[in-house]
Amino acid sequence: MRKIEHIGIAVRDLEESNALFAKLIGKEHFKTEEVNGEKVVTSFFQVGETKVELLQATDAASPIAKYLERKSEGVHHIAFDVEDIAAEMQRLKKEGFEILNETPKLGADNKLVVFLHPKSTNGVLIELCQERG
Amino acid sequence: MRKIEHIGIAVRDLEESNALFAKLIGKEHFKTEEVNGEKVVTSFFQVGETKVELLQATDAASPIAKYLERKSEGVHHIAFDVEDIAAEMQRLKKEGFEILNETPKLGADNKLVVFLHPKSTNGVLIELCQERG
Repeated sequence: MRKIEHIGIAVRDLEESNALFAKLIGKEHFKTEEVNGEKVVTSFFQVGETKVELLQATDAASPIAKYLERKSEGVHHIAFDVEDIAAEMQRLKKEGFEILNETPKLGADNKLVVFLHPKSTNGVLIELCQERG
Repeated sequence: MRKIEHIGIAVRDLEESNALFAKLIGKEHFKTEEVNGEKVVTSFFQVGETKVELLQATDAASPIAKYLERKSEGVHHIAFDVEDIAAEMQRLKKEGFEILNETPKLGADNKLVVFLHPKSTNGVLIELCQERG
């Protein structure tokens, strides 16, 4: 785990939240990206070495839509930057963490990603992400 | 906002969670600190330039105890490192954010801290913190 790559925040209205977080952080988001596999549209703000990622569902079947149904807007996940995602998955499985996808999938921002089940991580949904070469 | 100073995670049992996060992050917490004003005991892990702070209530009147009553274990707040907390408070008030304490208070890790009400920040409890000189 080299750094906190990003903090993912579930929002209902990306445009409104982009304006809100620009005021909070003191600068605009630097990009917007749609991730079809997750049915979300995301925007990114840079703060030091970490990004704040806002996530809005594009479909009622999106994990973000389901999250907002059950809970409310707020922190959805914490993503750690890893050098070798396959090695980290193996290490964490041995340590007893439950990994939600068997193989890494393509996430936003040119990353390979996997998620750990929050029931194995103190209620925090953890993402591991590796920059694609 | 210079960097994400730390991510605060509410836990029920600090000892158990210290062991869990040590496995997750791949290294031990580097310190434990009791913050009497907040009635919490905290531990810190370093990940890149950011810390993961675990918080356990030491009293039923602690904000963390109340949080765990209403919600469950998980991300409690996101803290941004600021150079001049008074100037940032003034800037954010003008932008319409609701600041929870009128004057900065002494937080963990030798910081002056203030919190923004999550209803003004998309459901995310935001802390600003300035290193004390």
